[in-house]
Amino acid sequence: MTIEKAAAIGGGVIGAGWVARLLLNGIDVAIYDPDPEAERKVGEVMKGARRAYRKMVPGGLPREGKLTFAKTIAEAVDGADLVQESVPERLDLKHRVLAEIDRHAPANALVASSTSGIKPTDMQSAMRRPERLVVAHPFNPVYLLPLVEIVAGKDTLPEAVEMAKEAYSSIGMKPVVVRKEIEAFVGDRLLEAAWREALWLIKDGICTVEELDDIMRYSFGLRWAQMGMFQVYRIAGGEAGMRHFMAQFGPCLTWPWTKLMDVPEYNDELVELIATQSDEQANGLSIRELEKIRDDNLVAIMEALGKQNKGKGWGAGALYNAFTGELAKRATKPKASKAAEKAKAEKKAEKPKKKKKD
Amino acid sequence: MTIEKAAAIGGGVIGAGWVARLLLNGIDVAIYDPDPEAERKVGEVMKGARRAYRKMVPGGLPREGKLTFAKTIAEAVDGADLVQESVPERLDLKHRVLAEIDRHAPANALVASSTSGIKPTDMQSAMRRPERLVVAHPFNPVYLLPLVEIVAGKDTLPEAVEMAKEAYSSIGMKPVVVRKEIEAFVGDRLLEAAWREALWLIKDGICTVEELDDIMRYSFGLRWAQMGMFQVYRIAGGEAGMRHFMAQFGPCLTWPWTKLMDVPEYNDELVELIATQSDEQANGLSIRELEKIRDDNLVAIMEALGKQNKGKGWGAGALYNAFTGELAKRATKPKASKAAEKAKAEKKAEKPKKKKKD
Repeated sequence: MTIEKAAAIGGGVIGAGWVARLLLNGIDVAIYDPDPEAERKVGEVMKGARRAYRKMVPGGLPREGKLTFAKTIAEAVDGADLVQESVPERLDLKHRVLAEIDRHAPANALVASSTSGIKPTDMQSAMRRPERLVVAHPFNPVYLLPLVEIVAGKDTLPEAVEMAKEAYSSIGMKPVVVRKEIEAFVGDRLLEAAWREALWLIKDGICTVEELDDIMRYSFGLRWAQMGMFQVYRIAGGEAGMRHFMAQFGPCLTWPWTKLMDVPEYNDELVELIATQSDEQANGLSIRELEKIRDDNLVAIMEALGKQNKGKGWGAGALYNAFTGELAKRATKPKASKAAEKAKAEKKAEKPKKKKKD
Repeated sequence: MTIEKAAAIGGGVIGAGWVARLLLNGIDVAIYDPDPEAERKVGEVMKGARRAYRKMVPGGLPREGKLTFAKTIAEAVDGADLVQESVPERLDLKHRVLAEIDRHAPANALVASSTSGIKPTDMQSAMRRPERLVVAHPFNPVYLLPLVEIVAGKDTLPEAVEMAKEAYSSIGMKPVVVRKEIEAFVGDRLLEAAWREALWLIKDGICTVEELDDIMRYSFGLRWAQMGMFQVYRIAGGEAGMRHFMAQFGPCLTWPWTKLMDVPEYNDELVELIATQSDEQANGLSIRELEKIRDDNLVAIMEALGKQNKGKGWGAGALYNAFTGELAKRATKPKASKAAEKAKAEKKAEKPKKKKKD
């Protein structure tokens, strides 16, 4: 499927990120968010996203989709072929919101939840048409990072998974279908494991948040931007490859190298310790300034990876080439060629309408 | 300190990576490795490293240091001011090798272990001069990734830590001193946590190694090349920043989102499953080919980050600018200017000899 009109339910960091990606791909979006500040917040995210997309495609972007702020979920989902739910991670709230979406969305609309960890099966129980629910879990910033984890629940139809893969591919994303449904899927399992360990390291005073961040971004962070841990370890095995690596490092797993048996107590003291160190690390830069730096860096990394592998691009870089190429192709024509555009439109009117293809 | 002559004890993937970084910085290295294949293997790593450095500094590199293959540890450490130990992770072996290094190295030589996780205190017991031992834990590929974790044991002198910081900085690295000694330090704690979780995901059939790798490198891997997890989450908190993020996501930690209470059994079946999937993922590319792609990608990412932040560079990119600038400055002069070099040499001979400064 291609997306003609989308609805975004929830306009927080993730919801607004979806809105930005959709609009910048030329898709109309109706958003519902009860927060009176929603319009301003989405506007801020749009500003950042526009700035990043202009860097990605300096020759001009497609005409932006139209954004509408709806007063109710029913109004937002009206006529939508994709409804993206991004409300807070509480099952009761998800149930309420998904039931409402389900009741009012067109029968053939795909309903996708942005949840980071709740199983789709646990959410489907609230729906009369559970077969069209998938989890489509993105990563922040949604308008730049290409990954979306697709997870089916027990009542999800295979067709819904296929629709989701097509829909997200058509807006420059990399859908990866998770084979079995588990809480937190794959991405957040890995993130939670690292996060839990990181909290111990800070709590125990082994390092500060800045030192920990530096340890990541001057070492394996650079590796993981281009190859995941298995490919990286395959190479680390040297000429003998993966079997050698596994044999060499396998035993370490049972050494006391992680605090695996415990979760650090999440109290005010720990929150304060981390928040204070994080303030110091920011070194006077506001969230918005950090966001710009982050976005510039991400665009630069993807662009750099796009030039690798004999110009074909590697990993996210290959996808970046295809995506930015597509955006450039669909760019709004400059005003000079208005006459040509009119002629083209007239010519088109003679032919039967073809399905729009992204 | 600057390094005038280094000794490398052990020439595996890590040891050879150290040799490459040192030689390409113009430092003479004597290596000891009992493997009859050591010379060929180090030669292969040098080939890859030279290729990467030529990309980094296309205008010419400093004269390479001289590499000597020593027959004994005593011969290798003779006259060295830095001895880098990179033998396999077995405490008994570390004890034997460090005792031998300690016995023969110059009294003022710094002794550094590349261990990924053994506490320096546990290794110092084998040494008569334990005060000069530090852990200096690098990341593969050592000739490209800048991070080195510096860890002191209970008998390490603060001066040794200072010497280590200076020495590794002088060869383009980012030393981070770990505040308290724990097994696996900081980097490998995080890596082990993610690795353990990854093994579960493969073992349980949630995803393949290729899917897991894609999930990493199309999402948070791109983020972590430029900011670590705390800075990233600070931004994800939106306008409310870190305190908001902690409050929002804190409770998830005790949800069943990781297999935290258990270690997957590391049997032949699991090794075979992963190795087979890894073979498929490689898609016919040899380790050497993958290594080239990895190195090209890493250089491209660091170069791209070097152009960010109004040209000052960001994170590993800022360091990359300084390092490549330094290498370019120290590049061997092209032959055309031989006369000029001779004149300079004559002029130098008139002045008292100054300490070489990297």
